[in-house]
Amino acid sequence: MLPRGRPRALGAAALLLLLLVIVFYLFDGRLRGAAALDEDLPWDHNRSACFPLRSLLPKCELLHVAIVCAGYNSSRDVVTLVKSLLFYRKNPLHLHLVTDAIARNILDTLFHTWMVPAVAVSFYDADEFQAGVLILHLPSPKPQAASSCPPLPDKQVIGLVENQSDWYLGNLWKNHRPWPALGRGFNTGVILLRLDRLRQAGWEHVWMVTARRLLLTLSATSLADQDIFNAVIKEQPELVLLLPCVWNLQLSDHTRAEHCYSEASDLKVIHWNSPKKLRVKNKHVEFFRNLYLTFLEYDGNLLRRELFGCPSQPPPQAEELQRARAHLDEEDACFEFQHQRLTMPRVHLTFLPVELQLPRLYDVTLVAQLSMDRLQMLEALCGHWPGPMSLALYLTDAEAQQFLRFVEASPVLSARHNVAYHVVYREGPLYPVNHLRNVALAQALTSYVFLSDIDFLPVHSLYDYLRASMEQLELSSRPKVALVVPAFESLHYRLSFPASKAELLALLDAGSLYTFRYHVWPRGHAPTDYARWREAQAPYRVQWAADYEPYVVVPRDCPHYDSRFVGFGWNKVAHIVELDAQEYEFLVLPEAFAIHMPHAPSLDISRFRSNPAYRDCLQALKDEFHQDLSRRYGAAALKYLPALQQS
Amino acid sequence: MLPRGRPRALGAAALLLLLLVIVFYLFDGRLRGAAALDEDLPWDHNRSACFPLRSLLPKCELLHVAIVCAGYNSSRDVVTLVKSLLFYRKNPLHLHLVTDAIARNILDTLFHTWMVPAVAVSFYDADEFQAGVLILHLPSPKPQAASSCPPLPDKQVIGLVENQSDWYLGNLWKNHRPWPALGRGFNTGVILLRLDRLRQAGWEHVWMVTARRLLLTLSATSLADQDIFNAVIKEQPELVLLLPCVWNLQLSDHTRAEHCYSEASDLKVIHWNSPKKLRVKNKHVEFFRNLYLTFLEYDGNLLRRELFGCPSQPPPQAEELQRARAHLDEEDACFEFQHQRLTMPRVHLTFLPVELQLPRLYDVTLVAQLSMDRLQMLEALCGHWPGPMSLALYLTDAEAQQFLRFVEASPVLSARHNVAYHVVYREGPLYPVNHLRNVALAQALTSYVFLSDIDFLPVHSLYDYLRASMEQLELSSRPKVALVVPAFESLHYRLSFPASKAELLALLDAGSLYTFRYHVWPRGHAPTDYARWREAQAPYRVQWAADYEPYVVVPRDCPHYDSRFVGFGWNKVAHIVELDAQEYEFLVLPEAFAIHMPHAPSLDISRFRSNPAYRDCLQALKDEFHQDLSRRYGAAALKYLPALQQS
Repeated sequence: MLPRGRPRALGAAALLLLLLVIVFYLFDGRLRGAAALDEDLPWDHNRSACFPLRSLLPKCELLHVAIVCAGYNSSRDVVTLVKSLLFYRKNPLHLHLVTDAIARNILDTLFHTWMVPAVAVSFYDADEFQAGVLILHLPSPKPQAASSCPPLPDKQVIGLVENQSDWYLGNLWKNHRPWPALGRGFNTGVILLRLDRLRQAGWEHVWMVTARRLLLTLSATSLADQDIFNAVIKEQPELVLLLPCVWNLQLSDHTRAEHCYSEASDLKVIHWNSPKKLRVKNKHVEFFRNLYLTFLEYDGNLLRRELFGCPSQPPPQAEELQRARAHLDEEDACFEFQHQRLTMPRVHLTFLPVELQLPRLYDVTLVAQLSMDRLQMLEALCGHWPGPMSLALYLTDAEAQQFLRFVEASPVLSARHNVAYHVVYREGPLYPVNHLRNVALAQALTSYVFLSDIDFLPVHSLYDYLRASMEQLELSSRPKVALVVPAFESLHYRLSFPASKAELLALLDAGSLYTFRYHVWPRGHAPTDYARWREAQAPYRVQWAADYEPYVVVPRDCPHYDSRFVGFGWNKVAHIVELDAQEYEFLVLPEAFAIHMPHAPSLDISRFRSNPAYRDCLQALKDEFHQDLSRRYGAAALKYLPALQQS
Repeated sequence: MLPRGRPRALGAAALLLLLLVIVFYLFDGRLRGAAALDEDLPWDHNRSACFPLRSLLPKCELLHVAIVCAGYNSSRDVVTLVKSLLFYRKNPLHLHLVTDAIARNILDTLFHTWMVPAVAVSFYDADEFQAGVLILHLPSPKPQAASSCPPLPDKQVIGLVENQSDWYLGNLWKNHRPWPALGRGFNTGVILLRLDRLRQAGWEHVWMVTARRLLLTLSATSLADQDIFNAVIKEQPELVLLLPCVWNLQLSDHTRAEHCYSEASDLKVIHWNSPKKLRVKNKHVEFFRNLYLTFLEYDGNLLRRELFGCPSQPPPQAEELQRARAHLDEEDACFEFQHQRLTMPRVHLTFLPVELQLPRLYDVTLVAQLSMDRLQMLEALCGHWPGPMSLALYLTDAEAQQFLRFVEASPVLSARHNVAYHVVYREGPLYPVNHLRNVALAQALTSYVFLSDIDFLPVHSLYDYLRASMEQLELSSRPKVALVVPAFESLHYRLSFPASKAELLALLDAGSLYTFRYHVWPRGHAPTDYARWREAQAPYRVQWAADYEPYVVVPRDCPHYDSRFVGFGWNKVAHIVELDAQEYEFLVLPEAFAIHMPHAPSLDISRFRSNPAYRDCLQALKDEFHQDLSRRYGAAALKYLPALQQS
């Protein structure tokens, strides 16, 4: 029931603001912890005493916020909550995330790549806590700042907002028998806990005794921890501190929330506690939905802002990147390239749920990356590849929401559960193509990966054929084989896709298809030897040559892509060089093929194609790349020098 | 010097908050007018008197904000300022916009289509004010709310923040001779004016006398109105009320602003008063830039939120639309179509500067609409059409910024000054194709328009040829002629574009080009009679037939597109029906042509193509359309009935 580690940083805080995010919230108004409620609103509806509230919260006081989160979809909701929190915060934060393994993997990567100053994150295993009730053990708080008003009574240890629905009144339907509560009861969507005093009061013991006793006569709780809190408070009303309604504005169907928001000038926490969430019926729902959408689509990169006057250690990776960026020369023609390499974009892994499959010896994940302008390729790709996919999507926060709607509206995409979408949030002017590939590659869960591009459609049989070929070739005992999938190109949208090699060859002969980049860059695939492939009945080995960039199937633990190649040019070529340098064997499969479908040039490519400095910068990257190759492979790297020096 | 109209609503206000937006600002913190400065901050650095500030500003008190704005680019900046203001406001607002004719046209349309509740807008002609100083004549203010603290001294009538640069110290360079000021002087980027008392004090006379006297010995002002305000205050220091620094945080190169923001917890107004604007060098510039970007990219639709508890008249069009929307049935299969028609998206006309050309009898503007995924067509289109264009772009606020960067990065687009881009902000799920066309059409300034689509490239000579043809045909005396530009189609990206009809025919014969939609929908252009066109030496007349949707050149005052056709289908066809019903004559030009370039299907089209209800809803729209035709044209509309009843 208790977290395994005792976070040391918590020691500094007198108070813990605990938000049990069972549904999702939106923060409006500045979140300041209990000691800094809005001066408009009395600390307690029943007392209007003068509180020097601000003095209780020094400018840089660390605030603690706990959030419960489990699963893929909740992880997206928590990000929206955190964005709103970061937008309004004026203080350093320590987030305590109580998660399952899925949410932990997502949120850990997210915060690691988000690198927000003055935000610490700790994780706790949700399975270790009963009934959603989390109490962290803390050392005694610091003495409170001197106050000219009398201190709060010692017994008030749980701050709560009154329930705005009629649930605990017990009259919602015939035989409606809720757990006991004081009056309308309290809503535990937002809880302010005085941990030191709760501990002194033996809270763990208190709630368990009450719960056990009630369970003798009542059925299981309907509202989990909320029922338990209310039952305890019914018995010991002195424990509760009534918080102003703006700290937990409850938007259920039949809510008294309007009483609250039509008078208040400053809302603090909005709580969609209806099971209908944003679709709840309420005459002002549009207003609250708009506030929610604000943070849903908010560019999270903008929240990486410092807190002035509050010294804090930047996240270690952030510091390193910042130091490296400080050495860049803004006047350098290749500044954008160098800057892009020193950018670590935020990553939201598995943006949509996936169902994990049992691992098999020979299974293969299609790995690719895309941005918004290639979204319309996804349906066709799903039709051609029934196997697992790991896709990195380069999107803004707002585009990520468009992407969600696109998937929801597509029967083909919504029906697929073995496609993992990893959102990499846009940052910087150059497309980080190889970084995206690496994100998708790292998340592939099968032993092999098919490293493809999003605008290729494989022959329908490819997934089965690859697995059969791997088995036949006994690849598990040959760890350094790259299976080549020959690439073709259609210049027409309306292609009757060939179902077999024979059909493909017929289209090729009829001039309806070409080998890939036949017109503009035949060198890229020349070593595949299309003439030999035409006749081949069995896999055949080919040798690397300059500019070779085939689409390959390799073990998942293959070398990463070199992320210095941003924008366009040399990104795949460098990877194939790396495979060759590591002595991978290139085997062309006789029945495998994929066809590139036509599309308009991307915005990114047209933005830079006309830039005359572009080629020079690319050459500089290639030079660096070769220096690295020489360092790692010594004289063997000489082989690649001519290829790297071509224009 | 005075506004022509005296806005009646101003009478209710005791105070006018005047923001002279010479550069641009960002609002952070709640803008509440003078009577509600943050309680942290004393009203005056020199006095810490207890002020019941809040009592001076009742919950729904109307606040007045004046902003100066001239030209295309400033209009974009003012929108960002207004967005931040709307985001933080808690009160009804009356904006007083002092503009030139360009900004007025843009902002008038913007606010008309934005329809923000509890925001009134008045315009004033900037040319009528000298030195940027605006004083509105107001009736006497209401008596102030009772206060337990002594009232402010009567003389303090101009609230200002101290200058954060060293300008007025007069030591910036040798012989630097600024106008006189008190100490560091004051910055007039943000001014709080007590209009009633200023009027009593004869302000108009005061500043003019001072300015005239100083101009006898000093050269012209360097900083316009700021120099005059400072000179007056130097002579009469009792006029000034020192505002806390957070109300005008000045981000110039050598600024003392850090003293301010590292101590304050709540910034109110951020002022980029360096000529370098966002590129100013400052160690925390990234922080402020992020805040600025927040509002730059903020979805302005989300700011259409009500003020709870403050009754206000909704904008009249908003009320009408709302009433109509209230009658819609959410369960209706065509709900989205009906809802989209009742949406009036925000419009920002001439998002980038245009240079107006002298009107000519025969000139023609290319009219088209596009969204982000067709941006890459613009450069090619500019290459094919040297004449004026009026383009409607359907974008989110964030995409509008991407669009700006795209134009800046393109030498072709930045060099063109006769292309007007009108941003229509995305709203709702269906593409409002005909509304977009109408926006672009209404902004065309030549007497004729070429109604095209963004994915067509006209033959290079088309612009000159059209003007010559119009002259030859003496169109000015034939107001109901529609010149047809025959449409062709390339299925390849790499098309060597035909320079003449002869070259086009050769490509057509070689199978490299087709007549438009030859494979999927030949009826759309059949009446153009391609066989006849092949041989034609002179314009020939053709008759309307079902499904005809040619690209035409018509007078600018032609009928509008029917905006009920949203999404895809029948949008152009209906317009051609309307032209025919109004007895326009269709004349095919023998040397004119345009070629459709291939592109991936848009996201919008793929989202709905698979929707089975789509066709039914389209048929319902067509039925309605025909009812309208019958109403307007009587029996003559019978001609169109069979066409409207086809599937």
